[in-house]
Amino acid sequence: MSKNKNPLTIDATNHAAEGGLLNRRLFLNSALATTATLATAGAAYGQDFIGEGQEDWLLYPGTSTLPYGDRSRFEVESVQRFIHDYSEEFLALRMSTYVSRTPLDHMLGTITPSGLHFERSHQGIPDIDPNQHELVIHGKVRQPLKYDIEALENYPTVSKFYFLECSGNSAVLLNDEPTDQSVNAIHGLVSGSEWTGVLLSTLLDETGVGPDAKWIICEGADNGMMHRSIPIDKALDDVMIAIRQNGERIRPSQGYPMRLFIPGFEGNTSIKWLRSIYVSDRPAMSIQETSKYTDMMPDNKSLQFSLLMDTKSVITRPANTMSLKRKGLYEITGLAWSGKGKIARVEVSVDGGKTWADAALEEPIQSKMLTRFRSPWLWDGSPAILQSRATDEFGRMQPTRDEHIAARGQNHIYHYSAIQSWGVGTDGEIKNVFA
Amino acid sequence: MSKNKNPLTIDATNHAAEGGLLNRRLFLNSALATTATLATAGAAYGQDFIGEGQEDWLLYPGTSTLPYGDRSRFEVESVQRFIHDYSEEFLALRMSTYVSRTPLDHMLGTITPSGLHFERSHQGIPDIDPNQHELVIHGKVRQPLKYDIEALENYPTVSKFYFLECSGNSAVLLNDEPTDQSVNAIHGLVSGSEWTGVLLSTLLDETGVGPDAKWIICEGADNGMMHRSIPIDKALDDVMIAIRQNGERIRPSQGYPMRLFIPGFEGNTSIKWLRSIYVSDRPAMSIQETSKYTDMMPDNKSLQFSLLMDTKSVITRPANTMSLKRKGLYEITGLAWSGKGKIARVEVSVDGGKTWADAALEEPIQSKMLTRFRSPWLWDGSPAILQSRATDEFGRMQPTRDEHIAARGQNHIYHYSAIQSWGVGTDGEIKNVFA
Repeated sequence: MSKNKNPLTIDATNHAAEGGLLNRRLFLNSALATTATLATAGAAYGQDFIGEGQEDWLLYPGTSTLPYGDRSRFEVESVQRFIHDYSEEFLALRMSTYVSRTPLDHMLGTITPSGLHFERSHQGIPDIDPNQHELVIHGKVRQPLKYDIEALENYPTVSKFYFLECSGNSAVLLNDEPTDQSVNAIHGLVSGSEWTGVLLSTLLDETGVGPDAKWIICEGADNGMMHRSIPIDKALDDVMIAIRQNGERIRPSQGYPMRLFIPGFEGNTSIKWLRSIYVSDRPAMSIQETSKYTDMMPDNKSLQFSLLMDTKSVITRPANTMSLKRKGLYEITGLAWSGKGKIARVEVSVDGGKTWADAALEEPIQSKMLTRFRSPWLWDGSPAILQSRATDEFGRMQPTRDEHIAARGQNHIYHYSAIQSWGVGTDGEIKNVFA
Repeated sequence: MSKNKNPLTIDATNHAAEGGLLNRRLFLNSALATTATLATAGAAYGQDFIGEGQEDWLLYPGTSTLPYGDRSRFEVESVQRFIHDYSEEFLALRMSTYVSRTPLDHMLGTITPSGLHFERSHQGIPDIDPNQHELVIHGKVRQPLKYDIEALENYPTVSKFYFLECSGNSAVLLNDEPTDQSVNAIHGLVSGSEWTGVLLSTLLDETGVGPDAKWIICEGADNGMMHRSIPIDKALDDVMIAIRQNGERIRPSQGYPMRLFIPGFEGNTSIKWLRSIYVSDRPAMSIQETSKYTDMMPDNKSLQFSLLMDTKSVITRPANTMSLKRKGLYEITGLAWSGKGKIARVEVSVDGGKTWADAALEEPIQSKMLTRFRSPWLWDGSPAILQSRATDEFGRMQPTRDEHIAARGQNHIYHYSAIQSWGVGTDGEIKNVFA
């Protein structure tokens, strides 16, 4: 039951861009069509401040607190973490699943719950006993040293909010035709967390590094012994050995008991289950930096060590595969991030990029962390194409898909960061489109 | 195995205050006693960057990803949420437990995992079906309106990091003798989260409020129908109807599917399972604002509606009931917060308040949110008394316990915010002391 007589009139002071985009400071008393319903006034409530209703939970005491508070039973099954085309045959063949996505459509802030952080491993999640696990720092150092989890916790620590994104995120958009996958399936290989740990520079200060130290080669304790090479300048900057995520020990799927965290770099370099850092004068040139994680360009040469993540944004609501069930007020919201620093601006369009409105950015805007953007939108039932376009503090702006392909071709699968377009039909159905 | 020959020498550039407090930018190559151990150099590792070890998790593939990533089996049992003097008889008598603490000693950042947020209910946790739950705003309004969870999600939302503290937190320190409870049991009724929701001012803009609206009376849908009265000025400021916590739907123990969140006010005013907001010209004068949640002063008169939380801090590591197992480098760390705004300064002392050093504050410092502070400390084995003292941006500084009692007496149980003292013995044992 809508309460409004003339629900689709935009007050001139509310106009932000074409297609119904409103200013952030909108006036709700100006008869915008909302989803509130009229309540019985006066008589039913009288001067009594007590609400109405006789549901079971009002009549009987509730349950006790638990050692670890769980989600509602109405929420547990509603989260989609795996892309929907994992057929039973596929799962049977692989026997195990080493990838999961963050359900971006279920998030409204910037923090990803640790249990819903995207996951990617190359040989499954190891079940590590922390009492048997050590990190060794060796190679071109003054003194090689070992650290277990208890030792690390006595060092000076830092806590930082950072995004992590797999460089293969969104790669399906390089296909010739738009996929009908959900926003989670297309873009869900990105998450945001508060990471606490010891700066690697602190530990390298203690081990000392030789003058010919140019790279560190970092290795995990999983069965795949995942390893990557990182330039020493980055290693001495903001890289940390993370031991906590969102206020508790890192979960096994995120690298328990300790992981490397490399802010702003492609996700796979943040080695989980970290057990060895070898200081070297050269990179390892491992499979993960030769046959994988390189980017083939139109001239058939490949970029190597393309580690820094680009400026990027995506509208997470409304998005494929949701639908708009009525005309009226909606909030367009999503996430923006840059591997180089802070997000400076996010613009939103609902007419396929013809006109743009500045979205509101939630403070505090943090370097190399997800930034939440929002724009109110009054949908009048016309077809629309929703887009967001982010710019970071260094002026790096997201390209269109056409611009990305013109510059880099389609023969690569990493570092796709172009503008996402969601098409809205007159029936309210939302589809992934190329625009 | 310690690697250092002369581990307890403090370089003059490292000195910050008496008793071994060091500057944040300490020099680890200056032979401070750390918990690192020497690793085998060269020969064992050679020019090979591969770490050593043949643990099971290196030899066999790990497990698949889960729909919701869980904690390590080595962590699940280690978190203490309930105060340790809940005897079996007590539990049998009550039959249920309506209080849990945040394990502050397990946190190193500022975010509390939703499942470890402190809990307090007056009649247990209701099991609410969100499809049957509505919030009604009524009373002195232009038009009474109802909102379900789906309706709220279309409104303009905000995401903010806020602490929540029960006003009864730390009250045991008003006893004549120091308790031997853990830091969690004494101070664990405080937590920090990212809360996402709709500003109440947005909804009151839509319902309209009459000129004689002075208070809102807010009620929960639990069996206790918990309700509190809030001044209209605060209601129109930063109060939100929260629908998400830390990136997912609020858990039942925190008010699923929606709760009131009142930044900086005593915790019980942030009504969980919110179902009614009645706009009124007077407060309800309910049991929760007359016989409870008032503060008896030395003149035997009680403060009423003492809603704003004071400036406060506590050292969470090292703290009772931990112990220092060796001399050498430690990190002193804890949390500071103010119900009025941002934390401006935290000082740390290890000599019972004779000398103080400024602790490092982790950015971003956010208004009405936990702020993490840290100081490196070289313990030489002498007795020590660890203290922290916070000041907010309005100059409100924590008092000593003696100052608190001189001003407010001991005949109250809410709003105790004095400086906490942890005594360290020569054996490394840490005790709660009055100093």
